[in-house]
Amino acid sequence: MPKIDLDSIQQANRTGYPAPFDKDVHGRWYRRLAPTSGLTDFGVSHVRLEPGAWSSQRHWHNGEDEFLVMLEGEAVLVEDDGRTLLKPGDCAAWPKGSTNGHHICNESDRDCLFVVVGGGTNTGGGYSDIDLMFTPDGKYVHKDGSPYPQRSA
Amino acid sequence: MPKIDLDSIQQANRTGYPAPFDKDVHGRWYRRLAPTSGLTDFGVSHVRLEPGAWSSQRHWHNGEDEFLVMLEGEAVLVEDDGRTLLKPGDCAAWPKGSTNGHHICNESDRDCLFVVVGGGTNTGGGYSDIDLMFTPDGKYVHKDGSPYPQRSA
Repeated sequence: MPKIDLDSIQQANRTGYPAPFDKDVHGRWYRRLAPTSGLTDFGVSHVRLEPGAWSSQRHWHNGEDEFLVMLEGEAVLVEDDGRTLLKPGDCAAWPKGSTNGHHICNESDRDCLFVVVGGGTNTGGGYSDIDLMFTPDGKYVHKDGSPYPQRSA
Repeated sequence: MPKIDLDSIQQANRTGYPAPFDKDVHGRWYRRLAPTSGLTDFGVSHVRLEPGAWSSQRHWHNGEDEFLVMLEGEAVLVEDDGRTLLKPGDCAAWPKGSTNGHHICNESDRDCLFVVVGGGTNTGGGYSDIDLMFTPDGKYVHKDGSPYPQRSA
């Protein structure tokens, strides 16, 4: 059955962010839906943010479109030009290449849930508020290109 | 603001289905979200089904992945191997190339809402229950390849 059994997919809160940028996403629990479903044309994550958690550091993608639909609870979308409350049913889209960074912050006192879709090809991207960028090969580096210390396993 | 103003996007219930297959989707009202949002890596439709309406005839895509998340109301997912009730928050995925046709039927007495994402490339596809298939150039034809009568404008 193509209905996805969400409970059968393990939730993870892993991040490759170097410290101290990792702590803001410790309460971000995600399930990757595409691998278990056989989807290859785009990626889909089902995400739960605990109170206080962020979806990511505020970022953009050079080569990947993103789309989000809010399912439960509320969170604040933060961008260059301000803050927007997202409620269940609200949709948001970020075309690749726009350097207007975005992230979703759960400032409420209960969990929120959303689905986010990503397509295209990773050609790197940047972070609006911190000295961090990501490379096409998935590495996190300073904005001058120098590496962050390796994380211990 | 990348939050999408859904009310500003016109709803349509157009279909290219030849009669009599068109009547089942007359109560399907959709908004295409990608064009107005600048997304090009995948398509997104925000769909409202009136009671009795179907999302489509039961179909598959040869070259396009599909993903759906239910937002409001209830509908029945119909596939070769049975029927599955979809409720808000439920997700379903149909990888391209699977000939297990699917559609969503609103058998309830109120509207339902869902978001559906499609990626990949149209290389045609088929319909499980009727003498219809679609071609890579977007035409609807009989399964023997012969055309349906042209629709009047």
